[in-house]
Amino acid sequence: MPRTSEPGRSVSSRLLEVLFAFQPEQNALSLADLVRRTGLPHATVRRLAIELTEAGALARQHDGRFTIGLRLWQLGTLAPLTEELRSKAQPFMEDLYTALRQHVQLAVLEGTDAVVIERLSGPTAPELVSQVGGRLPLHCSGVGKVLLAHGGSELIDQVLSGRLVRHTARTVVDPKTLRDQLAECRRTGTADVRGELTETADSIATRIVDGSGTVVAALSVVVRTGSVKRQAALPSLIASGLGISRLLGWRPGTKVVH
Amino acid sequence: MPRTSEPGRSVSSRLLEVLFAFQPEQNALSLADLVRRTGLPHATVRRLAIELTEAGALARQHDGRFTIGLRLWQLGTLAPLTEELRSKAQPFMEDLYTALRQHVQLAVLEGTDAVVIERLSGPTAPELVSQVGGRLPLHCSGVGKVLLAHGGSELIDQVLSGRLVRHTARTVVDPKTLRDQLAECRRTGTADVRGELTETADSIATRIVDGSGTVVAALSVVVRTGSVKRQAALPSLIASGLGISRLLGWRPGTKVVH
Repeated sequence: MPRTSEPGRSVSSRLLEVLFAFQPEQNALSLADLVRRTGLPHATVRRLAIELTEAGALARQHDGRFTIGLRLWQLGTLAPLTEELRSKAQPFMEDLYTALRQHVQLAVLEGTDAVVIERLSGPTAPELVSQVGGRLPLHCSGVGKVLLAHGGSELIDQVLSGRLVRHTARTVVDPKTLRDQLAECRRTGTADVRGELTETADSIATRIVDGSGTVVAALSVVVRTGSVKRQAALPSLIASGLGISRLLGWRPGTKVVH
Repeated sequence: MPRTSEPGRSVSSRLLEVLFAFQPEQNALSLADLVRRTGLPHATVRRLAIELTEAGALARQHDGRFTIGLRLWQLGTLAPLTEELRSKAQPFMEDLYTALRQHVQLAVLEGTDAVVIERLSGPTAPELVSQVGGRLPLHCSGVGKVLLAHGGSELIDQVLSGRLVRHTARTVVDPKTLRDQLAECRRTGTADVRGELTETADSIATRIVDGSGTVVAALSVVVRTGSVKRQAALPSLIASGLGISRLLGWRPGTKVVH
C-alpha cells in the first residue's frame, strides 16, 4: 500500500476518484452513490464533495444529489485538442449538416475508444447512442474503424485480441475480416459501417489528418439505415474532411502515418 | 490558518488550485507558470501535476507544458445544465444559423458573468471576443443584459454598484440608464446591444424560460455592426427562444420570474 505512506497523493487520488465517479449514464449522484462507487468512507466522501461544490467543480441539485458543476465544464473547454479541432471543424460540419440534414459527428481516439467531441443533429435524424463526450467502440462504429485503422499495429493487436462486443447481428467480430476492413480503410481513408452498432443506423466516416500526416480525428455522417445512398453522402464527407485537414496543415501529397 | 490543521482539505484545495490555474488566455502552462500562478512550492506543484496527468485530467505537450486533458473535458460534458440545454437548443440554433448565417450563441449566468455554453459561427461572421466556455460581461453584452435583467434585484444592485467597464465609446455605464434598459428587457424579453462590447459587433438576445418561469439562459445573434436589420433577425430569434423554452416545459402564459 504505497499510497498510505504518501498522504498527499492519497488525498488527491481520492478527490479524483470522487470526480471520475460521474459517468454519462449517471450524472447525478447522492453521497451514498459516491460512497458505493469510490469505496471511500462516508465522512471522507462528504468532506470532498462539499469542498468540490464550494470550488464550483461540483454542483448540488434541489434533491441533494451532486452533479458536475459549470466551472468544471468551463475548465474542460480549455483542453487544446478539442478546442482547436472543434473550432476548425465546426464551420465544415455545419455546412455538411446543411447539405445533408443528417447527424454529423467528430471523434478522437482516447485509449481504446472513440470519444465524440462535436456533434450536429437534426430533429428528423435517428436517435443516436452517442452524445458529445460519449464513447463509441473502435471495432464497430464509423469513426472508430477510421481511428483504429490509423492507430498503429499495437493498438490494432490490442483491440482485436480483446473482447469484440457483438452489438447487433451485423457487428463484425471476426478479427481476420476486421483486419481486412482496416487495411481497406487505410487505403481509402474512409469507413462504411452498416447497422453494426445499432440496427437502425448506418455510418460513413473519413479521417482528419494534420500537417505531419497523423490522423488526429474522424468525421462521420450517421443516417437511418438505407435512407441515404453512400454515393450521395461520401463526396461531401470526404471534401469536408480534407477541408478540416487543410486547416490543420495537411496538404495533398502528405504521407499519412499509420 | 484552519487549513493546516486539516491536511486533507489542504491537499485537495491545492489540487483544485492547480486545475483552476488554467485560463482561456493561457491554456498551456509550464511547471514554472503553475508555481507562479498557485503560489505553491515547486515540488508540490510537480507532484500534483504529474498525478493529474496520470489520471488524464491534465495532458503534457511535446514542449513539456501541461494542458487540460481529454478526460477532464469529458467529465465537464456531464454538467447537467449545459448538457440538457445544449442538446435541446442545438437544433433550434442550427436552424437559426442556417436562416441568418450569423453567430448564434447560448449563454447562462455564472456568478457575475455570462458563460457561453454553445456557439455556432459562420466563416463570414465577424470575429467574436467570446468562445465556448468563455465569459461575457453582464452589463454590455446581449446575453448578459438578458440574464442580468432576470437575475433578481440583488444581482442587479451588485453589478450596477460595481465597476462597469467601458469597452467601447458606446458602452452604457450609467446605472440609471442601465436600470431603464433592464426594465425594458424584462418587459420585452429581449435586449438590443449595439457596439457596446466591441465597436464592430451588434447583438440581439432573447430569454430562455423553463417550466417554472425561471430564465435559465439567453440566446443571441451577433452580427457585424449595421449588417443585419433588427427587424429581420428578431422574429426568428424570438421564435427559436420560445421553441427551446417549450422543450424546457415553458407554456404561453407561464409567468416569468424576475
